[in-house]
Amino acid sequence: MAPITNGRTLYNEIPTGFPEPGKTTVYDTSLTIDLENVPLNGGVLVKTLVLSADPYMRVQMRPVDIESYMPPFIPGQPIFSLGVGKVVRSDRDGFKPEDYVYGLLDHAQYCLANPDAPVFGIRVFVPEPGLRYSAYVGAAGMPGQTSYYGWKEYANAKPGETVFVSGGAGPVGSIVIQLAKRDGLKVIASAGTDEKVKFCKEVGADVAFNYKTTNTLDVLKKEGPLNIYWDNVGGTTLDAAIANAANHARFVECGAISQYNSKEGVNMKNLDQIYARRIILYGFLISDLAPKWEAEFYKIIPKKLASGEIKFSEDITYGLENSGQAIRDVQIGTNTGKKVIVVAQE
Amino acid sequence: MAPITNGRTLYNEIPTGFPEPGKTTVYDTSLTIDLENVPLNGGVLVKTLVLSADPYMRVQMRPVDIESYMPPFIPGQPIFSLGVGKVVRSDRDGFKPEDYVYGLLDHAQYCLANPDAPVFGIRVFVPEPGLRYSAYVGAAGMPGQTSYYGWKEYANAKPGETVFVSGGAGPVGSIVIQLAKRDGLKVIASAGTDEKVKFCKEVGADVAFNYKTTNTLDVLKKEGPLNIYWDNVGGTTLDAAIANAANHARFVECGAISQYNSKEGVNMKNLDQIYARRIILYGFLISDLAPKWEAEFYKIIPKKLASGEIKFSEDITYGLENSGQAIRDVQIGTNTGKKVIVVAQE
Repeated sequence: MAPITNGRTLYNEIPTGFPEPGKTTVYDTSLTIDLENVPLNGGVLVKTLVLSADPYMRVQMRPVDIESYMPPFIPGQPIFSLGVGKVVRSDRDGFKPEDYVYGLLDHAQYCLANPDAPVFGIRVFVPEPGLRYSAYVGAAGMPGQTSYYGWKEYANAKPGETVFVSGGAGPVGSIVIQLAKRDGLKVIASAGTDEKVKFCKEVGADVAFNYKTTNTLDVLKKEGPLNIYWDNVGGTTLDAAIANAANHARFVECGAISQYNSKEGVNMKNLDQIYARRIILYGFLISDLAPKWEAEFYKIIPKKLASGEIKFSEDITYGLENSGQAIRDVQIGTNTGKKVIVVAQE
Repeated sequence: MAPITNGRTLYNEIPTGFPEPGKTTVYDTSLTIDLENVPLNGGVLVKTLVLSADPYMRVQMRPVDIESYMPPFIPGQPIFSLGVGKVVRSDRDGFKPEDYVYGLLDHAQYCLANPDAPVFGIRVFVPEPGLRYSAYVGAAGMPGQTSYYGWKEYANAKPGETVFVSGGAGPVGSIVIQLAKRDGLKVIASAGTDEKVKFCKEVGADVAFNYKTTNTLDVLKKEGPLNIYWDNVGGTTLDAAIANAANHARFVECGAISQYNSKEGVNMKNLDQIYARRIILYGFLISDLAPKWEAEFYKIIPKKLASGEIKFSEDITYGLENSGQAIRDVQIGTNTGKKVIVVAQE
């Protein structure tokens, strides 16, 4: 088989605000790949099926000498994110052609994927019957794990308590809402469009509101106080949650999408209530919690997703050439449901 | 014995910024008290010896319908704080004349003190030989307990780790410095005057700096990263500590003196690092931890204070008529050492 074009989305430069396709990232078709003969050097050649666009990717668009929890993107090289692919050829025990793999993949139609990456090295998985494999970058993957691990580890939920979930329609928030309802809590959820608010209610939120048209402080004052706050957004929403926290509230600090695209900082008025109300804020990343919760997660959650007992939604972008736009959409929040980039059919 | 004047410091009005003696509080000598005949109604008549002026008292100067962890001051009534007194007469088992008591006392020369107050009801204590009783509102009292309980419960300190203590020269911070050194940590401390910086070093801080003349971010960048941050001040210092936190840092959120006298809020730039670095922030009050740690504290700490093994310092204001000024001094930070108001000699 002759070499074929290997489309790739390359990282170009650090954005000043929201990432812009064509500027922050550039789609490139200048390279070809010879699938039969490209040297594997102990690695695994993967055909990319779906890629994930996640909020944290903005954190990877930074000067390469600044450390953070995910490695930075390198100018001129493909961006990378979690994805699902199929093994084409393998030089590694445990990986064979046609296996599904999940883990960090380059935004390329084909890539040599790394099982040994320090975070999210690829691993083989068998999709749950009835569950489409794209779910494995969403509710059955990192976002779902984030919800499950964080909730289990930190929420210390008691029936009758009240939880507020910001970013409630996202792949993390929507699972948190459902875990909280299963534990017998009253759930307040916020989201940035009326369509997202509707989805929050569909998955069980008792109260859901559009934070762009409704005052968060007012809602929380009326519906709180909060025993638990699941924070996907940071910023003034965090401040409002602190102002309406119950004594001994638990705050699960999961993300801060409101802050990723700005260097302005945020005016916080209620931080002194952290000690006054004895709030504990748990910053966490799933990589730390995986050893404790991963096996349980895979045993329980994919089945519930396949049966519909736990709901999830996807917002699909077709074509790798559009991955830059998909990434931007997630930063701005115009996606409805887990943003998935479909790169190829099987 | 004829009735005598009972001087009192009355609460007058909510300050807009720092409390002002004569405006926020007013010293009043209009009442007399008949020590022999004043009805006790099951209570305890106490002669006030020393009173404490603490940062949290600013939190009590608020509208009475706003809840917080300490009850609000009531306009027209005496302010109150922790203090040491001597029992004059008692209508209560367990309290007899000449007993020393510690707990919430009115800012009055004599008061009917309450053993049943929900927080800090008075209790009898026997001063450790060699330890002046004023220490029982400082290093041997609430501030020392705050340090001890919080450190034991949340610091999870390991030898060789680095801790940053803001408000390092205060009665809480200076004990934290010493507990940290005993646990084998590197200690960075900040304070607001050169004299306070000197005291931080005297009690063992490896690095101490005046945050008004030295950039906190620069010091922490050079001397960090921080495994533990003991936060007495909040605000931009907290932001700087977050920016220089190690992964899995523990933040002990003890106070926020930088915020009590302002409604401006504070511009925070690094809150997203709470999750990125997996920081846990523990808001706490000693009342929650007392059942677990109080007995151990009283068994260990007063002896070490009496022997000089643990150092403390006091900044004394003489005369109840000056308690309003003492309270202001603590808010501004012009005191050096634990602010104690000496109301009477024994």
